[in-house]
Amino acid sequence: MPQNIYDKILMLAKRRGYIFPSFEIYGGVAGFFDYGPLGSQLKNNIENLWRHFFLLKDNCIEIDTPTITPYDVLKASGHVEEFTDLTVDCIRCKRSYKVEDIIEGTLTVNQAMEEDKIKCPTCGEKLKDPHPVNLMFATTIGIGDGRSAFLRPETAQGIFTNFHLLYRYSREKLPFGVIQVGRGYRNEISPRQGTLRLREFSMAEAEVFFDPKHKKHPKFKNVKEKKLFLFDNVKEFKISMEEAINKKIIDNEALAYYLYLTQDFLQSAGVDPKKFRFRKHGKDELAHYATECWDAELFSERFGWIECVGIADRSAYDLNAHIDSTGVDMYAVRKFSKPKIVEVKKIVPKMGELGPLFKEKASKIKNLLEKMNIEKTKNISVELDGKTIDIPNNCYEIVEEKEKIIGEKFVPHVIEPSFGIDRIVYFIIEHNYAEIKKKGEEYRVLKFSPQIAPIKCGVFPLISDKKLVDIAQDIDKNIRDSGITTYYDDGGTIGRRYARMDEVGTPFCITVDHDTLKDQKVTVRDRDSTEQERIYQKDLVKFLRKKIWL
Amino acid sequence: MPQNIYDKILMLAKRRGYIFPSFEIYGGVAGFFDYGPLGSQLKNNIENLWRHFFLLKDNCIEIDTPTITPYDVLKASGHVEEFTDLTVDCIRCKRSYKVEDIIEGTLTVNQAMEEDKIKCPTCGEKLKDPHPVNLMFATTIGIGDGRSAFLRPETAQGIFTNFHLLYRYSREKLPFGVIQVGRGYRNEISPRQGTLRLREFSMAEAEVFFDPKHKKHPKFKNVKEKKLFLFDNVKEFKISMEEAINKKIIDNEALAYYLYLTQDFLQSAGVDPKKFRFRKHGKDELAHYATECWDAELFSERFGWIECVGIADRSAYDLNAHIDSTGVDMYAVRKFSKPKIVEVKKIVPKMGELGPLFKEKASKIKNLLEKMNIEKTKNISVELDGKTIDIPNNCYEIVEEKEKIIGEKFVPHVIEPSFGIDRIVYFIIEHNYAEIKKKGEEYRVLKFSPQIAPIKCGVFPLISDKKLVDIAQDIDKNIRDSGITTYYDDGGTIGRRYARMDEVGTPFCITVDHDTLKDQKVTVRDRDSTEQERIYQKDLVKFLRKKIWL
Repeated sequence: MPQNIYDKILMLAKRRGYIFPSFEIYGGVAGFFDYGPLGSQLKNNIENLWRHFFLLKDNCIEIDTPTITPYDVLKASGHVEEFTDLTVDCIRCKRSYKVEDIIEGTLTVNQAMEEDKIKCPTCGEKLKDPHPVNLMFATTIGIGDGRSAFLRPETAQGIFTNFHLLYRYSREKLPFGVIQVGRGYRNEISPRQGTLRLREFSMAEAEVFFDPKHKKHPKFKNVKEKKLFLFDNVKEFKISMEEAINKKIIDNEALAYYLYLTQDFLQSAGVDPKKFRFRKHGKDELAHYATECWDAELFSERFGWIECVGIADRSAYDLNAHIDSTGVDMYAVRKFSKPKIVEVKKIVPKMGELGPLFKEKASKIKNLLEKMNIEKTKNISVELDGKTIDIPNNCYEIVEEKEKIIGEKFVPHVIEPSFGIDRIVYFIIEHNYAEIKKKGEEYRVLKFSPQIAPIKCGVFPLISDKKLVDIAQDIDKNIRDSGITTYYDDGGTIGRRYARMDEVGTPFCITVDHDTLKDQKVTVRDRDSTEQERIYQKDLVKFLRKKIWL
Repeated sequence: MPQNIYDKILMLAKRRGYIFPSFEIYGGVAGFFDYGPLGSQLKNNIENLWRHFFLLKDNCIEIDTPTITPYDVLKASGHVEEFTDLTVDCIRCKRSYKVEDIIEGTLTVNQAMEEDKIKCPTCGEKLKDPHPVNLMFATTIGIGDGRSAFLRPETAQGIFTNFHLLYRYSREKLPFGVIQVGRGYRNEISPRQGTLRLREFSMAEAEVFFDPKHKKHPKFKNVKEKKLFLFDNVKEFKISMEEAINKKIIDNEALAYYLYLTQDFLQSAGVDPKKFRFRKHGKDELAHYATECWDAELFSERFGWIECVGIADRSAYDLNAHIDSTGVDMYAVRKFSKPKIVEVKKIVPKMGELGPLFKEKASKIKNLLEKMNIEKTKNISVELDGKTIDIPNNCYEIVEEKEKIIGEKFVPHVIEPSFGIDRIVYFIIEHNYAEIKKKGEEYRVLKFSPQIAPIKCGVFPLISDKKLVDIAQDIDKNIRDSGITTYYDDGGTIGRRYARMDEVGTPFCITVDHDTLKDQKVTVRDRDSTEQERIYQKDLVKFLRKKIWL
């Protein structure tokens, strides 16, 4: 496959309604792409296949939360401080660049800076003073001063902030997984790589909550002998999941299981297994919330290996952050086999004293006091909004009592497979794009699987004879009524119509001919084998369902 | 049904994972709601049913464009000027209000203002100086000065700005429809009415392009005798579509057809036909782009009649706006039966002269000159960015030539059915909520149709006997593998488990009992009739598919 495959695909994608740059009539804006009629169906099908893996196979639940997120939430999650790119501005031509994009070869950012090696790619001026720039889109809720907010950089925070409700919904059993499919935003400094680096993108994320003492998945045992193709930044190798765990290459079974589920999904969706690997993040490239992370990387003839999925162990980072910021109980309970009777020392806060003294902070302080684990009873203080507040001892009582406890509280750990849907859409197009010569002419085929193909079948009358047209339109309507997408076409030769369908990846074509009038059968042509079989008109829906459904 | 139904539904919705306020652990923000595990499935199912009506039945195409939209696009569409609410600010307590929300009874805004009748609902201060406030969320693309942008107030502009590509995709035939399903944003001044007035919402819109001389739908004839229930702001009446057209109550067949499709969709999704009507907008309430608009209103026991769908005739407003702003050819062609030879006078611009004189505006001016229809040849001028620019006559030549033209260009008209998905979700819950007394206890049922129910069937072993559990889990897995959602439950009595499923609207429950071991049959219980039938285990998927698929 040639290096210019990206340009070829983008031309095909625009011409046939897959993908095109947004706002083109207004000059376009880098980092935004539209899905056309076929692109949107391809994307819907990929998202629905993903749901099949995570909702139906893996038994996760789905939620759907706003893209606009108040400042407080993203301050707590660390994104206000950490969701940044190191940036340099050119003092001559006023352009800004992400440092990583413009340093050359194997230089690290520090080296490049120290050795004065960064020059403006536009005007050649030396670039200095790199500084972190936050990549969230900012907005304001309400008018006037309003309330500061951002467009979410990930869907995950919508899940974490609802953990206590979702835990109850799941009848307080771990592990359980929660998914979200929707838009994410990243205000890139100067996006390149076309469809691969978007400022607004579609993502599909799962946050799976585990007891940190049992980071195991109930289905791991069924798949532990399956092989994963790994890259440790030095060499590539195949290894079974069991072995990867034993050799401590992957930290825990839960994480390994989601590597496998990711691999299974991507290959079912049409990713070429030979252009697929998992790469482990080095310690220096881990996101601020992650303790271990593997990227599913896909290979592009044009761009090389590109991250499309990140599977991270976020440990208890996010839940802890929200507990610290809000004081809300977001713990899970590890039940004892029998309830225990224990002596506990408790702080009983006196609101009558706390109220006048601490005003609007009083109830937060009360919550913190109640949660406090005390052994020494002198000089009690709490941490609130980054400050240490001493609590005078007339504001509480210490009582000792016997308590029956049924288990111990803990903050669950999270394994997060996070999928960049737009990149996956692009790679599925690239990996399924084929060029063949046919009668000397270039002929293009998209070899999409029937599950994800935007149009499932073309429906043609052989010629424009009213009798054939009526039957073909009838067949077309019947198939659509059953929920299957079709494309009715009576223009041009049959060869031309096949070519049109091959080029957009339609797996089947149905042709009504004069024999149909006699035997009620139609010709069904398979895109990949180009073989044809005669099938009864009345059996078409059943035939297609079998090919298409999972 | 009692007036407090809204509170009951919101309690049920939160407890059972349908809908709950967003960011509650951070104090919440008015106008934002989350969909929980069941709510998100209900919403997905409603959106997919909507797609079935518009993509498969009505043969529309779908596209998917960004929510972030550059200033220029929304300036051209009129939203920068017109997407406003008349607002008053209280000088004493600093709160702001939408005037319409706080005037009482039948007063118009003007009357209320003149008669000094508006008081602050919070502090009682007299309110003055109402002024329009734009309701779009603003943001900036890129860093530094960046590029001004908004979150889209409607998905429609993403369709209009791609008209030329979509027209070509549709092989230049009218009518054709384009849909988009996704988020819309409206920065409400001070949202009330809970889930009904959101700042971030899901919408499903169709923009159907017609030749203004033929505002007819090919399927109108099949349904013209169907009755619509209309409200003309004075009285309610039933009328066939044909009669409504003849009496000029509805302007054209295309508009009438989409009223019918809307009614058909809503009732299929579970809206109570007795709580459904279409209301015509008065001239004074039409949006800035509409020439006629009908709202599909649904009745709530708590809120009264509420707009859930708007079906507007946007005429050529939007395409004209984008043509005027960009000069891009967004016309359709009405072909003549035979090509015509005509004499035309043409302006041939001279870039050699225009370039030095008008610099970066030269090519826009060139485009405008080429499109110009000239009769008089003196004093040629163009309108650009709101200014009139005179073009010196050395910058162009006038030539007369014969031209073969195959048709005449025109700007298509648009009929737009625009659905507020969140409101529809709420109303489907309210219209399907039932309370019955069972053994003296209150018992709640959500009577969702099988198509839209979030969980299609409960799967239970009668008792926790391993043999029954194994079979039940096997059945559960089989049904899920076929793409159908289930809920496996082995906790509590069968009655209790039925009650749980009834309360969340699950239409079927499957129970495995000791007879199953002998006859391979299970009991299937129907939620609404509570009747039970014995069905072979192997026939379950087929049985459910028949009930669930469209």
